[in-house]
Amino acid sequence: MVSRFRHVALVGKYQAQGIGGVLLDIAHFFDRRGIEVSLDADTALATGITDFPALKPAQLGERCDLAVVVGGDGTMLGTARQFAVHGVPLIGINQGRLGFITDISVNQFAQALEPMIDGDFVEERRTMLEGKVWRDGRSIFESFAVNDIVVSRGGTASMVELKIDIGDEFVANLRADGLILGSPTGSTAYALSAGGPILHPSIAGWVLVPIAPHDLSNRPIVLPDSVDTVIEIVAGREISVNFDMQTLASLLHGDRVVIRRSPHGVRFLHPLGWSYYATLRRKLHWHSGTS
Amino acid sequence: MVSRFRHVALVGKYQAQGIGGVLLDIAHFFDRRGIEVSLDADTALATGITDFPALKPAQLGERCDLAVVVGGDGTMLGTARQFAVHGVPLIGINQGRLGFITDISVNQFAQALEPMIDGDFVEERRTMLEGKVWRDGRSIFESFAVNDIVVSRGGTASMVELKIDIGDEFVANLRADGLILGSPTGSTAYALSAGGPILHPSIAGWVLVPIAPHDLSNRPIVLPDSVDTVIEIVAGREISVNFDMQTLASLLHGDRVVIRRSPHGVRFLHPLGWSYYATLRRKLHWHSGTS
Amino acid sequence: MVSRFRHVALVGKYQAQGIGGVLLDIAHFFDRRGIEVSLDADTALATGITDFPALKPAQLGERCDLAVVVGGDGTMLGTARQFAVHGVPLIGINQGRLGFITDISVNQFAQALEPMIDGDFVEERRTMLEGKVWRDGRSIFESFAVNDIVVSRGGTASMVELKIDIGDEFVANLRADGLILGSPTGSTAYALSAGGPILHPSIAGWVLVPIAPHDLSNRPIVLPDSVDTVIEIVAGREISVNFDMQTLASLLHGDRVVIRRSPHGVRFLHPLGWSYYATLRRKLHWHSGTS
Amino acid sequence: MVSRFRHVALVGKYQAQGIGGVLLDIAHFFDRRGIEVSLDADTALATGITDFPALKPAQLGERCDLAVVVGGDGTMLGTARQFAVHGVPLIGINQGRLGFITDISVNQFAQALEPMIDGDFVEERRTMLEGKVWRDGRSIFESFAVNDIVVSRGGTASMVELKIDIGDEFVANLRADGLILGSPTGSTAYALSAGGPILHPSIAGWVLVPIAPHDLSNRPIVLPDSVDTVIEIVAGREISVNFDMQTLASLLHGDRVVIRRSPHGVRFLHPLGWSYYATLRRKLHWHSGTS
Repeated sequence: MVSRFRHVALVGKYQAQGIGGVLLDIAHFFDRRGIEVSLDADTALATGITDFPALKPAQLGERCDLAVVVGGDGTMLGTARQFAVHGVPLIGINQGRLGFITDISVNQFAQALEPMIDGDFVEERRTMLEGKVWRDGRSIFESFAVNDIVVSRGGTASMVELKIDIGDEFVANLRADGLILGSPTGSTAYALSAGGPILHPSIAGWVLVPIAPHDLSNRPIVLPDSVDTVIEIVAGREISVNFDMQTLASLLHGDRVVIRRSPHGVRFLHPLGWSYYATLRRKLHWHSGTS
Repeated sequence: MVSRFRHVALVGKYQAQGIGGVLLDIAHFFDRRGIEVSLDADTALATGITDFPALKPAQLGERCDLAVVVGGDGTMLGTARQFAVHGVPLIGINQGRLGFITDISVNQFAQALEPMIDGDFVEERRTMLEGKVWRDGRSIFESFAVNDIVVSRGGTASMVELKIDIGDEFVANLRADGLILGSPTGSTAYALSAGGPILHPSIAGWVLVPIAPHDLSNRPIVLPDSVDTVIEIVAGREISVNFDMQTLASLLHGDRVVIRRSPHGVRFLHPLGWSYYATLRRKLHWHSGTS
Repeated sequence: MVSRFRHVALVGKYQAQGIGGVLLDIAHFFDRRGIEVSLDADTALATGITDFPALKPAQLGERCDLAVVVGGDGTMLGTARQFAVHGVPLIGINQGRLGFITDISVNQFAQALEPMIDGDFVEERRTMLEGKVWRDGRSIFESFAVNDIVVSRGGTASMVELKIDIGDEFVANLRADGLILGSPTGSTAYALSAGGPILHPSIAGWVLVPIAPHDLSNRPIVLPDSVDTVIEIVAGREISVNFDMQTLASLLHGDRVVIRRSPHGVRFLHPLGWSYYATLRRKLHWHSGTS
Repeated sequence: MVSRFRHVALVGKYQAQGIGGVLLDIAHFFDRRGIEVSLDADTALATGITDFPALKPAQLGERCDLAVVVGGDGTMLGTARQFAVHGVPLIGINQGRLGFITDISVNQFAQALEPMIDGDFVEERRTMLEGKVWRDGRSIFESFAVNDIVVSRGGTASMVELKIDIGDEFVANLRADGLILGSPTGSTAYALSAGGPILHPSIAGWVLVPIAPHDLSNRPIVLPDSVDTVIEIVAGREISVNFDMQTLASLLHGDRVVIRRSPHGVRFLHPLGWSYYATLRRKLHWHSGTS
């Protein structure tokens, strides 16, 4: 049978111990099945693997039709963001405890990948956020986020005050440690810790979760992803904005973070039988009956 | 100018003091503008008003192209549910503190209604839930809900255990006081008290909010409204299901409540300039800057 | 060595499968060490054990200087309440997953009990609540609670309104599904599910936790246990009050539940090395470093 | 009648507009009643008032037997901390919206103070925290806090991991944005925003509130104030510790913050009729019946 895929990009979490051997095993697995393998350049450098060509992310994105990521959810998200503009689907392989989106154990990678490269997989699309920071009428920063965009105070400062608008409509002024705008993917990450709900990936919306809000009635709110969200810095010191884990520090009063749904999305491939709810049950230790 | 509306149904909260005079004022307001007026039969009975024809809700629904409700959010919801199958839009007039959906003060009803009957209004559509209770393969109850459908334990009983499925997928077994399935409209009502997020009315989803869940990780979850939610009674005593405030008591183990998006929706008309977020700010005492 | 204890009361969860064999094993364990054994009458009846004398709880309380409970936290609490007036200390043996207060596994009962009967144990004292229900100037009900006293609405009713006073001071009128007054022991039970904090057993206070409060600012509050708490029924239907799991239904408007610290407390004995925080970590799956 | 007080210290919030006139009015009020008045040196400098002697806080603390603070809760807390070692009681006068502890409106200061200086007041004692930061066996910082001591991450960093011990007992490793240790006074401040309960001032305990904890079961916990709490930095970057609003930045892994109850407390004086619960109702907009 001919594989569904032609050229796989391999990305690993550089700091992880013993990652070199695992990556080589996976590379040979694809190689033996006639699928071209290229390594992420930084991964190749960190592991010293020279048996396969090393390419920069942009090149991988252009040439590959599949990416396999070895690491945790964080590595997966970073890679997803890089490959989103190219529409490359991703498979996540986890060395430790399985994550929300990296759901194949490294010990069973061969059994899991075998049917997937023949086309037997579940494809799941996740929306992505894109945000721009405006100062004095000019955009000074822009980036993507798969999980969330967070505006928050510095460690030695007090509350921030943020003015929130949705499209042309004023929502409220928020006084808090900060504000998380989370995608459905991000709703099980930081937003959940801060008290937000879980959003099913098919919900066309974001959740705005205030962090330690001064007013107790400032509860999380789920908004449609079809209109822009604008967060303006009204008061506070040492304010920064984070796109997933990428930071722009030193926001000024009057700066505006404008967030919209990215035209690009993220494509995750899972083994057949994968279930979103089973992942929630596993990660959140939900009860599944007859204890 | 010719009115946009031809025949108005008038509904009042029967128990409210002085409601008779207010209803007559509103009836004459429409009458003077050549709009036919019919009273809800129960309202007519309770107030003793005989100047206008009294009709049953079903007849009002068939004949009228507008309903004006005098009362609070509760009266509005009940009327909305009755008129939903007929697609009649509603305007809410409030005698006391303005509600989430009854946003015209009785003192200003004439100024507010004047432009609205000429077509100058904001129309807002809200989704509605419909649910059926199944026992031994037969449906034993069915009803609509604008706010929420709630399965919960009796006052003298302990926890219930509920099995939740979404479409064909198993979600979890929940051990709690109960479970709220709230629409966006209901997300600012009971679901909010139980710890749920606010859902913007344009979100095509429901929120499932556990009431006092045994497992702390059983957090509210927002689900698409395009698939059925099935709640099965696994354990517990004196369990009942509520559709808005309408109760079916004495659910048995094995009973299943199947909930889906109703093909009918609710249409609310607001004065021009109405804002969903302004209503949230007012009702939840949100901060709106420059304190 | 002479045992610290002279006469042990044995109590078992009647419905538990295979409990008879376990109880006999434990009875013989004490018997062999020269400690007199009496069985709880209901336990003897349910298991058919006739090898040891069966006594009513009041008799056990008067004659025994130790109680051993086989079951979960629920059984332990019920027994603790019965024996509190007699000051009999309790040891909990658990057949299933260990509880918050039943922390000896049935498989290791002999190793655990051996040193304890020689006096090597940790004694922990827990406060107990006592409450009276007053109607028209007369007390119509009174009871004890180890975990909590809960006033709540029935399953088919709407919100209750409760007036809360502490000593002579008015606190607030609460509109909610109900109100939990939890002891430190109860703070890890129902009160925790409803959003309350954990209270260390040495805190001389109660926590008042509203259940699904209408006002979002009605947050849990920790109060000193040295003054009476008075909960008066102001509005609502089908209201009941629960003392641990014991229910008085059909409270009327104007009824007052007066709650104070009981002069009696509960004494739990644990194996040496027992730690309150280790129990929290185990039951709540808290992280203990270097995952 | 001879005044209860001999020498009053006057402290004002320097930045507040029009504070000079108010301070002079209050100063003359005391002066006319034969009570010596000294101004806080910084307040005198900021307002340009030279009619009364200006002293440093330490001198005020030694010489005065009453302090009157004009400002909000923040100013009051800062002053309370300075005067705590001297046992000087404080009265708070508020120019704007009344606070939790500054409960006399500037418009009514004379009516409120008149009986108080004759001895008709309610005295309320609040506990105070003291903390030391230890590095490599040496204390590198120590301070007091009336509200809370907070260990938290910087704005551009990810989660911190903190090891918590109570006395000699290990509690848990917490992964979160940070941790608040709040006094009863602080329980209505930042700790409340982060999800903590309210602690009545007579509770001899602290509340530990995790900020956005990674584990959903890391709930607030109320601990006795009779043992030390030790917070050790295990992981994270840009970590700082705040004592009320006073910051020590750049904590390192292995640093330990040791917190205990201060031997000094804070004394607040309120007009007769003052009620802790009335303050809660006013500040938190609690319902007080028959709306």
